[in-house]
Amino acid sequence: MTTVDTIIAGKYPAKSHARRVAESLRPHYQGTTGVIYLEAQKTRLIEDNDEPVPFRQRRPFFYLSGCLLPDASLIYDIGSDKLTLFIPPIDPEDVIWSGLPLSATEALKLYDVDDVLDTTKVNSTLASIASAHGGKAIAFAMADQVSDGTEFSGYAEADFSSLKSSIDQSRVVKDAYEIALLRKANDISAKAHIAAIKASKSATNEREIEGAFISACIANGAREQSYHPIVACGENGATLHYPKNDAELTDPVTKQRKSNVLIDAGGEYRTYCADITRAIPLGGRFAAETRQIYKIVLQMQTECIEMLKEGVQWEDVHALAHRIAIKGLLELGILRGSEDELFAKRISVAFFPHGLGHYLGMDTHDTGGNPNYEDKDSMFKYLRVRGRLPAGSVITVEPGIYFCRFIIEPFVKSPELSKYIDTNVLEKYWSVGGVRIEDNIHVTKDGYENLTTAPKVIEEVESLAL
Amino acid sequence: MTTVDTIIAGKYPAKSHARRVAESLRPHYQGTTGVIYLEAQKTRLIEDNDEPVPFRQRRPFFYLSGCLLPDASLIYDIGSDKLTLFIPPIDPEDVIWSGLPLSATEALKLYDVDDVLDTTKVNSTLASIASAHGGKAIAFAMADQVSDGTEFSGYAEADFSSLKSSIDQSRVVKDAYEIALLRKANDISAKAHIAAIKASKSATNEREIEGAFISACIANGAREQSYHPIVACGENGATLHYPKNDAELTDPVTKQRKSNVLIDAGGEYRTYCADITRAIPLGGRFAAETRQIYKIVLQMQTECIEMLKEGVQWEDVHALAHRIAIKGLLELGILRGSEDELFAKRISVAFFPHGLGHYLGMDTHDTGGNPNYEDKDSMFKYLRVRGRLPAGSVITVEPGIYFCRFIIEPFVKSPELSKYIDTNVLEKYWSVGGVRIEDNIHVTKDGYENLTTAPKVIEEVESLAL
Repeated sequence: MTTVDTIIAGKYPAKSHARRVAESLRPHYQGTTGVIYLEAQKTRLIEDNDEPVPFRQRRPFFYLSGCLLPDASLIYDIGSDKLTLFIPPIDPEDVIWSGLPLSATEALKLYDVDDVLDTTKVNSTLASIASAHGGKAIAFAMADQVSDGTEFSGYAEADFSSLKSSIDQSRVVKDAYEIALLRKANDISAKAHIAAIKASKSATNEREIEGAFISACIANGAREQSYHPIVACGENGATLHYPKNDAELTDPVTKQRKSNVLIDAGGEYRTYCADITRAIPLGGRFAAETRQIYKIVLQMQTECIEMLKEGVQWEDVHALAHRIAIKGLLELGILRGSEDELFAKRISVAFFPHGLGHYLGMDTHDTGGNPNYEDKDSMFKYLRVRGRLPAGSVITVEPGIYFCRFIIEPFVKSPELSKYIDTNVLEKYWSVGGVRIEDNIHVTKDGYENLTTAPKVIEEVESLAL
Repeated sequence: MTTVDTIIAGKYPAKSHARRVAESLRPHYQGTTGVIYLEAQKTRLIEDNDEPVPFRQRRPFFYLSGCLLPDASLIYDIGSDKLTLFIPPIDPEDVIWSGLPLSATEALKLYDVDDVLDTTKVNSTLASIASAHGGKAIAFAMADQVSDGTEFSGYAEADFSSLKSSIDQSRVVKDAYEIALLRKANDISAKAHIAAIKASKSATNEREIEGAFISACIANGAREQSYHPIVACGENGATLHYPKNDAELTDPVTKQRKSNVLIDAGGEYRTYCADITRAIPLGGRFAAETRQIYKIVLQMQTECIEMLKEGVQWEDVHALAHRIAIKGLLELGILRGSEDELFAKRISVAFFPHGLGHYLGMDTHDTGGNPNYEDKDSMFKYLRVRGRLPAGSVITVEPGIYFCRFIIEPFVKSPELSKYIDTNVLEKYWSVGGVRIEDNIHVTKDGYENLTTAPKVIEEVESLAL
């Protein structure tokens, strides 16, 4: 077994996460004690239909349990450091259709908890903990995630507002087990990206590439996608959240095969997400313009990743990406003017309109980034992480350069800004669509670890696509 | 283009569906007139996350519009026979990320509606129709599917209870366009079943077969699965709703490759569902016991399908399946006694515990079946369709024989019933798991059309799996 598989063969560190969250909650129960109560996602049916809604475990519940069962609950008694998992009782009717569910004994072996009980015992357990703490404990739960029948009588207070932010903040710094899960999601997704590149050779439509990606994820153990995949050929790559994935790879008018495909896709492994973007050539060789843009984006990404270590200011990394984009676009002649003036006027935002990256974990856009979408500065408005990066955080580094008419045209039409863009040169680049290169980076005390192993060196990508 | 593709290149018959539903509503607006109001599914975010919930269009809305857009609405004015679609206004911020949405002009070309307006015009349109009918019209809408701001002032009554059952009942009889969509879903799913059989040759785990199935669906235009696929090797096939799809195909103890895999999976094409089950041999040849069971199940299915035509009583077809199962299991020596006694004692329910099939359409378990889950008769309790089948209905025919310990053991342990089952013979069959064969059948005036083209003849399946 590889190191990753060795680590994840052990138990998910639920107890340690419970302690970490309890520590973060301390200001809210200072002088007394507290109890954390969390519920798993419920089994739900599709509105007016008897099929279940696709299940996605609630992240806060998973973080303190490692348990993927629906309809479960957990209680962490901070004072006695006791974590109890509650699993649904056996429904004999359900056994006939779905087989025997996990038993309490099996659950105790599987999860890092101190006890496993039936969900019918939730209220009596809550009451007995309340009583053991003499009515002075505070119960912490998530607003809108507490079932109707749950009772917090006997507690000094039921606090529905503090737990979410404590968990959100705790999740920013990942432990070794979580890093191993993110690596596993990345390893599987790398295989899927390679399968997608190979499928592109004979594919006639974007969806064949998407199918190959998803198939490889499922075959390797990542049943769920971290997010809706983007498979965008040619100019579709300029649509940042292109949702369709159903265009023909050959232009219906010119009968020419599109020159490149942008693939932004990642598998989810036990709730942990990979988020990887690659641009690949159709036919084995990047078109000249795509290759020029690819080189700039790869340089943006490489230099930004090199900056990463504990304490780096994320805005500085994002700004560096813009400076490299400006230099590259100046060299190509798409931009005109001095680097500093172009930077000051935020001209590169026309080509790189989104943020450099976001935290990654159980959510693709993971918790704790403190974005400021009200920021008036167009360069930083969409940046999903603000401030200094702590060691242990995992962040995506995903610069891109796009040729999107909706975004660039207002610049070209602006009396003040049009002089910075050479539309004659620009004309050659619309067919590039967009190039984005995205890896998942674990920030460490002295630097970083790149968790993403999908190929991105031009020659390697070209040889796989040939 | 094939006939199917020619038909579905035209418009989905929304107007004709609106008229059909209006006709079914007539008793509720007799003497005056009515207006039907329906909303599409909303764009929703995952609870405490900024990713969208996977989109599934509301079936009632699609039935009267053919439109897959979220956040849209429709009004059908019964009196003036006018169907109006309302689509969301353009959000400039959204265009930057997702590209230009469908315009009203494009929508009018695409959908079988009389007018396309902006959703901001819903209330004024409702009001002006109310006024045109002099305040006498009744507004029909779905309970819990009306946005807060929607106003039915000016109507004699807002009826939230009649529309659902009218639409549910109208959906039972499919028109030629709907049959073409179901055929298309079946054609794609047949390709996917063949891809799954081929993948089984080198697969080591159930999930590789599942991945191949889903990939082929996506590549051929069925992005969504009709339901969570079941890929169950060996004894897992005895779990009727086996959800895991992650078992190794080689027994960890005996190191023997399992003898067969049950695959119950179908792709969804523009909301229309295929629902197909096949049992395939691992290694190209069915084991002797599996082959015996397969032949019985195929005979159950073939004879039941042959019975189908307008007006057939579904309970009779289901009973026929049981009689064939009883004969087959008697021949194998698993059952003992006379066919009539075994039938009267409902012994075959131990091996064929579920219903023979269900209506199929935009839902996998489609509307209008009138099941009676409170039926005390174990043979009919789970039958999802009761009564006579109309021409134009589409129904699954999916007999199965399973060797499920949870289901069979109560029979074997019953003092009254144990004499009917020879446990010595039964012992040889546990490894079969389960065999189910499921096709989708269009019931016609004089007989039926089988919409399912996935291979099921033993020799054909074996040669694909070899």
